Formats: sequence, structure tokens, C-alpha cells
Amino acid sequence: MKLTIVGCHSASPRYDANPTAQILEVKGHLFLIDCGEGTQVQLRKFKIKFARIKHIFISHLHGDHFFGLVGLIATFKLLGREASLHVYGPKGIKQAILFQLKVGKTYTNFDLHFHELESDKPTVIFEDAILSITTIPLKHRVYTNGFLFKQKPGERLLNIQKAQELGIDPCYYQKAKQGFDVPDSNDNKVSNTTITFDPAPVKSYAYCSDTAYFDQIIPQISHVTLLYHEATFLQQHAELAQKTMHSTAQQAAMIAKKANVGTLLLGHYSGRYTDYNEFKLQAQEIFKQTLLAKDGKVLQL
Amino acid sequence: MKLTIVGCHSASPRYDANPTAQILEVKGHLFLIDCGEGTQVQLRKFKIKFARIKHIFISHLHGDHFFGLVGLIATFKLLGREASLHVYGPKGIKQAILFQLKVGKTYTNFDLHFHELESDKPTVIFEDAILSITTIPLKHRVYTNGFLFKQKPGERLLNIQKAQELGIDPCYYQKAKQGFDVPDSNDNKVSNTTITFDPAPVKSYAYCSDTAYFDQIIPQISHVTLLYHEATFLQQHAELAQKTMHSTAQQAAMIAKKANVGTLLLGHYSGRYTDYNEFKLQAQEIFKQTLLAKDGKVLQL
Repeated sequence: MKLTIVGCHSASPRYDANPTAQILEVKGHLFLIDCGEGTQVQLRKFKIKFARIKHIFISHLHGDHFFGLVGLIATFKLLGREASLHVYGPKGIKQAILFQLKVGKTYTNFDLHFHELESDKPTVIFEDAILSITTIPLKHRVYTNGFLFKQKPGERLLNIQKAQELGIDPCYYQKAKQGFDVPDSNDNKVSNTTITFDPAPVKSYAYCSDTAYFDQIIPQISHVTLLYHEATFLQQHAELAQKTMHSTAQQAAMIAKKANVGTLLLGHYSGRYTDYNEFKLQAQEIFKQTLLAKDGKVLQL
Repeated sequence: MKLTIVGCHSASPRYDANPTAQILEVKGHLFLIDCGEGTQVQLRKFKIKFARIKHIFISHLHGDHFFGLVGLIATFKLLGREASLHVYGPKGIKQAILFQLKVGKTYTNFDLHFHELESDKPTVIFEDAILSITTIPLKHRVYTNGFLFKQKPGERLLNIQKAQELGIDPCYYQKAKQGFDVPDSNDNKVSNTTITFDPAPVKSYAYCSDTAYFDQIIPQISHVTLLYHEATFLQQHAELAQKTMHSTAQQAAMIAKKANVGTLLLGHYSGRYTDYNEFKLQAQEIFKQTLLAKDGKVLQL
């Protein structure tokens, strides 16, 4: 998994601050998460291939998370895209996007599927052989979901030395990697765990923006490799965070700590701050392994 | 009148190319003409005060001319705007914008007035003591208007030397400037033209984008000080211009020539070209006084 921060700020786009958008790459698949105004320009800046984006996830319908979507779709059309595009987002997104295209008689020449979300329970919205994507219902002023991207366990790893020692026919190796017991050279059954190791640990990414402090999400994001949690405010504006249903850096850190995540990534900083390092310092009082999102930052999970 | 080119390109926004938007300043009033994605960032870049924009004119509902409008309105709200905002544009614009705000429960705390246009005849849509603004119906794939900004003639200019020679009481100067005949020191009526000059010539700006070659507009834009006319294509792509209902640089120049305008300004260049100077060269074969729009360019009329 590779995460690229396309835009890390809250509120309106500015010359040096792009609203929320991220690209998660999982074995060649590109998933776009949120799409504030100007996202398509940022994607070009970071040399992300438009054609490889087939799935877009919109957390909620505040402008800084979706005003760039219609322009991106219109650009896909201009570029002659043929591949289907799937958009997942709150109910209303389909009409908001399609009406804008319709008034300009802009009709896509590719299949455009909207998957509108309404449930307040975690829901699997995407699944293939490689990963599953589940909504993380959040607590904000409007209906909002985070998204949990979870790789599926790979095949078991063959202990080739042990397999050879036991004279196992290589034609059984694949079966062994799939977890089956297989026969040795004397046709005696060998327990699978004798000749295989556990697969590489499953990587997972939880995206949680925008939200007030909401500890109901903790069981669902427990032990994720990387948690992105919004931190719009510093501690001195905790009251404002409560009022606007956003989080402080310390609240994000508290969630990370209680969920025992690997790493916490903060973002969605309010425009009132100029020194983002303070977010990190405040969070690290509670959860040491904290990083700051920054436009263009790439994290390998 | 002062014109700032906020974005001069066609199609999608790119890192180095912003879609159409212009600011026309007339005696302190700022009029925003078209508003492609990213316009608000461009406005900030060119240090244009958001609060001074009270009227926005949208030519047509293709994305590169209006996808930045909803974000700009949302930003106005975030900035605590109180002044009314008037948006003029094709029918459908109100719903396209308001639905996007509604799904995010974003309600402006200022009055937001939409003036939806449907007429295919030139229509006065704004008028005050300083200028009038009239639609210029254009010929494009969707309903499109250009806009004609025309200053009203100012007061006549007093020939102060002549007025003193004739012993005219200064209390009559204002009346004279308003065009009235006034009495001299012997109470004889003095013809107004004896003691005044014609007012400064009226400035006018015609904005024409997007449009195919359409000579029906010529009478309306005759003798304007500055004509902005789209020139999406060069001559070698004249067929493409016809097919997409855009203009070539030479077609724009032909309109300028037939309308006897002061200066022609080209823009809305297709992304397929890298050397824009060729637009100027081709146009100048027909109309010498041709300029190229460029992001950030400022023209004083």
C-alpha cells in the first residue's frame, strides 16, 4: 500500500493549501479518497495517472471534500476515458454531480456508477481478491463515512528447506501455500504448518475525516497499520472543535492510542494555523508515532 | 475600466493553465466574468479582494466556465460575507449551485440572488449610474451569452477659461456640465457648447466566449474599446472549430475587423497548442491591433 497526500488542508483551496484528497495505491489499483476543488491539478502535479483511478470515495458532502469531483469527471470525458468509474458517497452525490453535467449537456462516454451510502453501520462497499473496503461511520455535522482499506491475507509462505527435507513433490507446493496438508515422499500426510510460515502481516489503512472525537470507531480501526485522523484544531481551540464537530490533535491521538494503531497521520488543519508542527507535538504527548500529512507526502505502508 | 485575466485557457484546469475567468473593474466595482475550477485560488494569487465582487456573470454552463462558482460561494460564506451577491447565468445555474450547497447543509449567511437568463435577444441585465451590462447572445453547443459592459457618458467638461471670460457665475458651472445653457454676467443665455467640451469618450468592453463565428453580434459590439473573443483553434483546425462550435483566431479577427473595435483580445486556447504567439500572428493578418490573454495580464481601457 502506498498513500499519497494530494491535499491536506481544511476549508477552501488556497494558493499554497489544497483541500482534502488522497490516493491510496494497492497493488496497482488507485483509489481516490475525497476530492476537494483543484484535486485534478494536484493529481497532475504529483504525476498520478488519471486512467488508473477507477474508484472514488467521498466521505461527506462538504465542499472541501467533493467540489473537485465534477471537474475531474468532466476531464475524464475530455481525455476520452472508456473505463468505468465508480463513485461511493453519501446520498445526494449522484444528483449533485449529474445535474451539473446535464446543464452543460456533458455526457460521459464511459460508465459512471454512483454507489450512494446511507447506512450508519460499517458496510463493506468494495471487495476483490486483494482487499476489502468498509465504511467507518463518523460523527460530523452532515452524514459522513471514513473508509477502512484492508488487504486480504496473502498465501502462506513455503518453508522450502523443510519441504525438500521431507521430499515433498513440488507439484504440492501451491496446495501447501493455500493452507492444505500435503503428502511427503512416503505418502504420509504432513501438517501444513510444518512446511509453511504465516503469510506477511495484513496491511490496513483507516481514513477518518471529518469527525468529532468519536470512540465508537475504535473497535473497527483497532490495530490498523496506519490511521489518518483529522485534526482541524489545536488544544487551545477545543471548544471550537466541539462546536464544529471536528477534532483536536490530542483527540486524534487519543483515538490512535485506544485503537493501538501502528502510526497516526494528522491532517485537515484549520487555516488559522501557520505552524503545523504544533499539531504533532500536542498529539505526541499522547501517541508517539504521529506524522503530519503534507501535500505531496508519500507513505509506504 | 481595468480588465484582469484570471484564467485564459479552455477545457480543464492544469497546473500551468487556468480555465476562463476575468475580473472587470469599473470605478471600484468588481465584476467577475465566468468562473472555472480554481478561480478562487487565482483571485487570491492576483490579490483581488473577494468582498468587492458583488456581481458574477456566467456565459454558459460548460464546466470550464462555472465549476469554480460553488466553491467561491462557499468560501464567501466561510469568510463571513454579509453583502449580497448577484449571479447572472443560464437557466439551470441556480439549481446546479444550490443543490450542491444543500447536500452539504451549507447555507449562505448573505443574500444570494440568481438571475437566470433564457432570452436569445440582447437584454440589459444590469444598469446603474456608471454603466450598463447587456447580454450578447452567442452561438455555441449550449445556450451561451457574451456580455457587453458599457460606461455611461460622464458630465460635459467645463471650458473654465471661456466660462470666466464670459463672466459666468460659478454657481452655474454644475448646470453647464450637465448640458444646460446658462446665463452670462449680462444675463444673456450662453449656448452650452460654447463653454463645455464633449465628455471623455465612453469605454466599452465586449466579452464573447464561447462561440462559433457568428456575425450577428457585429452591430451590437460595433466600435467597442476592447473585444475579448474566444480563439480556441488555429487555422489548421478550422474544421474542428466548426464541429465544436468554437472559433479560430482568424474568425475572431474577422469579427473584430467588421465591428471596427479598438483592440481585440484573444483567449480560450485549446490545450493542444504550446506556442500561443501563433494565434496572434494568424489574427494579425486580418486585424492588426490584436493582443493575447494570459493569466494575470491586466489591461487598462
